[in-house]
Amino acid sequence: MTKMKTASHDMAGLETAPTLYVENGGIRFAYRQLGPSTGTPLVLLQHFSGNIDAWDPAVVNALAVDRPVIAFDNTGVGRSTGQTPDNIAAMARDAVTFIDALGLPKVDLLGFSLGGCVAQQIAAEHGRLVRKLILVGTAPKGGEEHLLAVLQDAFSQTEAPDPRLPLFFTKSPASQSAGLAFLKRVKARTEDRDTDNGKAVTDPQAKALITWCATPDPDRALSRAISQPTLVVSGSHDTMLPADNAYTMFKAMSNAQLMLYPDSGHGALFQYHHLFVSHVQTFLEG
Amino acid sequence: MTKMKTASHDMAGLETAPTLYVENGGIRFAYRQLGPSTGTPLVLLQHFSGNIDAWDPAVVNALAVDRPVIAFDNTGVGRSTGQTPDNIAAMARDAVTFIDALGLPKVDLLGFSLGGCVAQQIAAEHGRLVRKLILVGTAPKGGEEHLLAVLQDAFSQTEAPDPRLPLFFTKSPASQSAGLAFLKRVKARTEDRDTDNGKAVTDPQAKALITWCATPDPDRALSRAISQPTLVVSGSHDTMLPADNAYTMFKAMSNAQLMLYPDSGHGALFQYHHLFVSHVQTFLEG
Repeated sequence: MTKMKTASHDMAGLETAPTLYVENGGIRFAYRQLGPSTGTPLVLLQHFSGNIDAWDPAVVNALAVDRPVIAFDNTGVGRSTGQTPDNIAAMARDAVTFIDALGLPKVDLLGFSLGGCVAQQIAAEHGRLVRKLILVGTAPKGGEEHLLAVLQDAFSQTEAPDPRLPLFFTKSPASQSAGLAFLKRVKARTEDRDTDNGKAVTDPQAKALITWCATPDPDRALSRAISQPTLVVSGSHDTMLPADNAYTMFKAMSNAQLMLYPDSGHGALFQYHHLFVSHVQTFLEG
Repeated sequence: MTKMKTASHDMAGLETAPTLYVENGGIRFAYRQLGPSTGTPLVLLQHFSGNIDAWDPAVVNALAVDRPVIAFDNTGVGRSTGQTPDNIAAMARDAVTFIDALGLPKVDLLGFSLGGCVAQQIAAEHGRLVRKLILVGTAPKGGEEHLLAVLQDAFSQTEAPDPRLPLFFTKSPASQSAGLAFLKRVKARTEDRDTDNGKAVTDPQAKALITWCATPDPDRALSRAISQPTLVVSGSHDTMLPADNAYTMFKAMSNAQLMLYPDSGHGALFQYHHLFVSHVQTFLEG
């Protein structure tokens, strides 16, 4: 187990911070750490197919003003070694292996989409490790997903400059405009960018997410096993993992707040990044 | 039409501010005004049976730090004259008469429960008058209500020190404790308290609220007619006007944010007053 580097990265943003590496359990994990060195770290769990540079600097850097924020590639993703597993339980184990490698006894988790499933699994199983939980654009076990149909549709829109425009934003001019601004932000880093993911990552990830939603959990046992304060966020018109999932999780969890945003899709947290950051700050500080 | 008094009440709280009066349309309206004299005023629309002193000073005074906040008694309520009408449309007309009496060209509205129905009606009909809308513990036209059953149950709990404990809070120790703190706050004003309401107020109010929910609006025409940015808030376990109403309004409205709070009833805004104020401030400033 390698200890977290202690150099201060207070002034760096996601676009400029160096990519660091830590080894544990036979995996060499790539990560970036932002913000102050004290306070409960917020660990980010990324969406299907995303790497560290798929996070929005507007969200990550703003959250890192008040707390350590850590973005990382889970096993096999981006520049982390190993084979990406095809199930959420293994992804959760690997994420805990990464957190342990940094020697962090207590963290907050922000899981987006696939990362939200992983975050739920960790929170349910590791009550002492997770202080607070933020779930964005995600689904409970046994939830509703339209992943393959929506992905197919998005990638068929060859005129779109990036599949994330149709996938993460609605068709309204306001949402599309926010989408273009988001793309500009995530592409701002030009040197030492993370490695794009191919089918060796996305195939098992798709299987993990689809299996998660296809596995019945009629009593919502997993949601009910999460006792940490939780903030559940979704866009009104998320086509891949509909907002009904968020309402379902809210109702099953004992200590969740629900926030739904208007005229927004899967990328609601990027579209309303000021609002989202404000809500997350209020939640984490409360 | 009488102009709003211009004396500064910046330093007064709801518990200490003088009760003012303004006449328009044959009604003498009682009100209190808090906060600075500049900025878009936030007008509060009160719940079934409530008067000015039923508002929580912790909410009202905190919101008044940054903006004018006006609490008033609508027609027939508390110390306002006239006969309380038995329908939401007339209550909305009366509220606009009051706002006109103060010479306010543009306001934000915070409507709680019955007041939320009135606020929706005003926002839908007076697009220019209402800048932003906050709907708490309320229902759309044609929504779900369990008013009479829940009231009957609450008033049968004779051991409760105040019917608002079982009506506004859940049975959990945390919620009941927040309820006792709320009761202490709303009872802090000892002089010049508003007049309690009897059946001449509550009978027509109950009829108005029940009729509102019993009037079908299958296409959600009223919700869809509201174009103002709207914040919809509800407690997870509101027994009188369930949280499903909030989700229904959010989905029908074009520009609404939804916030649901855990382990809370009809009085979620009082139970989580710090959180609610933070969310309202973020919403109004955004």
